[in-house]
Amino acid sequence: MSSHSSTARFAEARRVAIFGGTHGNEMSGVTLVNLWMKNSTEIRRKGVEVKPFITNPKAVEKCTRYVDTDLNRAFTPENLSTMGEHDLPYEVHRAQEINKIFGPKGSPEAYDVIFDLHNTTSNMGCTLILESSKDHFNLQMMNHIQKAIAPASCLVLLNEHPLLKYSTSRSVAKHPVGLEVGPQPQGVLRSNIFEAMRVILKHALDFIELFNEGMEFPPCTVEVFRVSERVDYPRDANGNIIAMVHPNLQDCDWEPLNPGDPMFQTFDGKTIHYQGSGTVYPTFINEAAYYEKQQAFVTTRRETLVASALRKA
Amino acid sequence: MSSHSSTARFAEARRVAIFGGTHGNEMSGVTLVNLWMKNSTEIRRKGVEVKPFITNPKAVEKCTRYVDTDLNRAFTPENLSTMGEHDLPYEVHRAQEINKIFGPKGSPEAYDVIFDLHNTTSNMGCTLILESSKDHFNLQMMNHIQKAIAPASCLVLLNEHPLLKYSTSRSVAKHPVGLEVGPQPQGVLRSNIFEAMRVILKHALDFIELFNEGMEFPPCTVEVFRVSERVDYPRDANGNIIAMVHPNLQDCDWEPLNPGDPMFQTFDGKTIHYQGSGTVYPTFINEAAYYEKQQAFVTTRRETLVASALRKA
Ligand SMILES: [Zn+2]
Ligand SMILES: [Zn+2]
Repeated sequence: MSSHSSTARFAEARRVAIFGGTHGNEMSGVTLVNLWMKNSTEIRRKGVEVKPFITNPKAVEKCTRYVDTDLNRAFTPENLSTMGEHDLPYEVHRAQEINKIFGPKGSPEAYDVIFDLHNTTSNMGCTLILESSKDHFNLQMMNHIQKAIAPASCLVLLNEHPLLKYSTSRSVAKHPVGLEVGPQPQGVLRSNIFEAMRVILKHALDFIELFNEGMEFPPCTVEVFRVSERVDYPRDANGNIIAMVHPNLQDCDWEPLNPGDPMFQTFDGKTIHYQGSGTVYPTFINEAAYYEKQQAFVTTRRETLVASALRKA
Repeated sequence: MSSHSSTARFAEARRVAIFGGTHGNEMSGVTLVNLWMKNSTEIRRKGVEVKPFITNPKAVEKCTRYVDTDLNRAFTPENLSTMGEHDLPYEVHRAQEINKIFGPKGSPEAYDVIFDLHNTTSNMGCTLILESSKDHFNLQMMNHIQKAIAPASCLVLLNEHPLLKYSTSRSVAKHPVGLEVGPQPQGVLRSNIFEAMRVILKHALDFIELFNEGMEFPPCTVEVFRVSERVDYPRDANGNIIAMVHPNLQDCDWEPLNPGDPMFQTFDGKTIHYQGSGTVYPTFINEAAYYEKQQAFVTTRRETLVASALRKA
């Protein structure tokens, strides 16, 4: 079979989870999942079990990102196989529980799809996060969502960077889907962000229902923004930040940053320019949670991926 | 002497403090005060001691609003007179220390002016907070700032509500001045908010220098927004929030809200309308820190205050 006519075939997606509260102060996902746990009418689809689930209830209760350590970095092979329940950080213990319920990660028993709902303080709009450029099921789903919500837009961030990729909560599933919607401050619920997230989930679940019903999805292309580099704030010798995101860059997620463009502004008013070798597309610009991760933004590069035709096996 | 020709006279303002980090995750004030502690050139004025001071260093270190309790509610007579250092919440202990250094509150030894620097997630722009409509020194200062920064604007919020007024860190001074600048998410430093705060402080200190030098300030009027009522989110019988700030109200701080205008949107799409008896001006709309205080916004009413002429005694 020649590659242009090959069709990707997957078993029906019978088990789907929607995670909220992986970061306890990201209120859209926390609120939607809590609503759907009380009344699941909206997320019910024929022949699919859709399970809404609060992943970090202690952090949600305290309205903080996490209690001991970032849950969305905790699903490493080491953490998931560690013994000694009593001494573990809360989130490592919780990662093990989640892996038992929705995994085990990498096994045939794992959930088919996990949607993990996040908010960002960055001006990213709606962003789907893809963990593998070879996941044709997710590429087709993301293409479907993009078409369904047009003229509204929803970009795709691809993170399969060897060093910057991290071990997410959703990585337990066969098809992990991250959803970031912003800008929204931590601890705040904004109606526009809430509704945007809700609509994307609707179309994502519709896609799964259509797929399970046997619809064939023709090959398509998906424009993605591939994570390239992490850029830290300028710092002094003691590690203290000495500059802010430049006003020309602030809120300009996904817009081209060219060599020589203003990038930071020091507290004494000097401009620091981008010195890279070509055009990049910054995102997660000035995200609150990434100060502690030494990241002012990540650069991405645009790329077009081809998704094979898709139908159920 | 007839009232229209009376002149308010105060001693020179020799001791001035600038507080940052009263809320540890409000980054403009934290950053400015830390900068000025290293290099005070920018805040030096002839004949004035200007002391930059981090009020809640533990909260700043953790980048949280507070550790045990809200420092900006802790300066009550009870707290300031309580003994038993060991059992006290951190912020109550800290309030006592601050009161020793900059007060005692209400005494002739207290600092003349304290500026307390805050950020809000609400779209409030620059807001000066006045604690007494009879503080002619502060009214003249605020008028001076408004004129100096025009055409940029800086509104005045007057909080002398018998129930909604609270015991602020700055209340230790003879002339307490709150400064709120937003919108800015907690834990984030935005260059536009940082620079706006910096400019207001510059003009405030200039005013004090001019006053000390003997300048006479003629009578003037100042438009203020007087705190009227606290409005909570709609809740179910268990106390859970069931609605969000309506998109027509979100980000519309200081704009008129009339009876019948949309105020909240429930999660199932219903609109809740404002039912008050007249036009109000909401502010602190959807402030992150006020979810725990059961406050979606406060209403204010516009009022024009007359400030007496002012000169030093
Ligand atoms: Zn998150
Ligand atoms: Zn504050």
